[in-house]
Amino acid sequence: MTLPEKITVIGAGLLGASLGEGLLRRGLVREVVGYGRSRANLEVALRRGCLTEIADDLVAAVRDVSLVVVCTPVGKIVELVHQCVATGSRGTVFTDVGSTKEEIVAALRDLPKGNVFVGGHPIAGKEVTGAAAADGDLFVGRPVVLTPTETTPQEALAVVRALWEGVESEVVCLSAEEHDAILAKTSHLPHLLSCALSAVTPPSLDALAGTGFASMTRLARGSEEIWRDILIQNRQHVLSALELLTGKLQELRQTLSDGDVAGLEAFLHLAKKNRDALGN
Amino acid sequence: MTLPEKITVIGAGLLGASLGEGLLRRGLVREVVGYGRSRANLEVALRRGCLTEIADDLVAAVRDVSLVVVCTPVGKIVELVHQCVATGSRGTVFTDVGSTKEEIVAALRDLPKGNVFVGGHPIAGKEVTGAAAADGDLFVGRPVVLTPTETTPQEALAVVRALWEGVESEVVCLSAEEHDAILAKTSHLPHLLSCALSAVTPPSLDALAGTGFASMTRLARGSEEIWRDILIQNRQHVLSALELLTGKLQELRQTLSDGDVAGLEAFLHLAKKNRDALGN
Repeated sequence: MTLPEKITVIGAGLLGASLGEGLLRRGLVREVVGYGRSRANLEVALRRGCLTEIADDLVAAVRDVSLVVVCTPVGKIVELVHQCVATGSRGTVFTDVGSTKEEIVAALRDLPKGNVFVGGHPIAGKEVTGAAAADGDLFVGRPVVLTPTETTPQEALAVVRALWEGVESEVVCLSAEEHDAILAKTSHLPHLLSCALSAVTPPSLDALAGTGFASMTRLARGSEEIWRDILIQNRQHVLSALELLTGKLQELRQTLSDGDVAGLEAFLHLAKKNRDALGN
Repeated sequence: MTLPEKITVIGAGLLGASLGEGLLRRGLVREVVGYGRSRANLEVALRRGCLTEIADDLVAAVRDVSLVVVCTPVGKIVELVHQCVATGSRGTVFTDVGSTKEEIVAALRDLPKGNVFVGGHPIAGKEVTGAAAADGDLFVGRPVVLTPTETTPQEALAVVRALWEGVESEVVCLSAEEHDAILAKTSHLPHLLSCALSAVTPPSLDALAGTGFASMTRLARGSEEIWRDILIQNRQHVLSALELLTGKLQELRQTLSDGDVAGLEAFLHLAKKNRDALGN
């Protein structure tokens, strides 16, 4: 499966711009049209070689394009795809890079006029945002989850797979529900915890905060908009993950109240064993 | 206040070896005697210029020395100082680098034969341990908390202050209780949370873990022995800090259950504002 010569990226932030750069630099597509709400950011993306063209509106962005990658905050994806379809797209494959999948995939399951949505989520990123931080190798060796349904045409899945394999990602297919349940644990809960720790620690204590505190709260610096949307969309799975964690904290409270050294050692040992298995 | 020509470091791990290197390199002391349980580690410290001599036993380590810095896990500090005193130390100033202070300072408050203990805690560190990672600039610009009591002689406090100001730290004096209450929030709770997150996340999910998960669980790789001792010794303050955090998580559970977007935005905003105030 080869990619079309021209694709469109809606939202040229870190992920969208990095994808554009990765595809163009490898000669996998000839044109990447960009569309987004920040003109300044699109111009950065164009200058850095992440895009070949900026579209002035959504109609121009998706005209004569057979593959559109939506790289906006998750709360905007469904609406944007519907708007694209309304402009007259036919037989276009839409995909996304959103961190939540169930709600989006369900809402875009039956598109009219031969348009198809295939959910996608590259597990890659940096702490910085925007096209200025774009990196055409951002996805190399990183997993990308695709969430086809039983009605997804094989050709649509194949073209989205080719997109990510082209930038050297490792594609994994899961159901949208499996994806959201796992990511609640490996990404959304960690983010929530980082924010909770930051929220309960007033800056008056910062003078005595070390590198451990800084690293445990760093995720709290992320975009409020992006994380609001993720946490709202995936709240059922996030609540389940939070339940597990608060159960563990409840156990620990008992362990510490009892001065239970053996219990504490077992806890620290399990935590270290799990983390050592992950590597650096 | 000038430092004595010869000092002793008990436990030449990252902190002890870095202190020795920092003092020797700056010409602030002429001799640093090292004593510890790992001969191999002491030899690394000697080779790297963190020590000038290895003592074979505690008697040799503290003979004719007026300043001893105990850099062991917090669970060993009280016993070691008592052992030093039992070897015949007279008028020696003992200090430490332990992350907890109340229990240690209380236990070493009234030493016989003119010996004095002044509690100390440099808020500095790295993820790596041992003399091989020693860095004579580890403490530059970092806060060091000293916890004198109303019976601490001024000269003893002055020599410990000179020790840390010599390696370019910023000395802060607090009561042991103030120290422990603050560090429970800025260090011990973050460590506990990192471990709890790691403990509830089986390695089978690692394939879909990104950099955020890795950074949120990295502290769990720390020494089980060091952290067991810290969490046990400071458990009352850690329990209070944990109470605050679980209260916030309880609020968040409600916010998510209700799909309360405004509440979630306010939470993410406070978390980001607090963390942005800390800087990188």
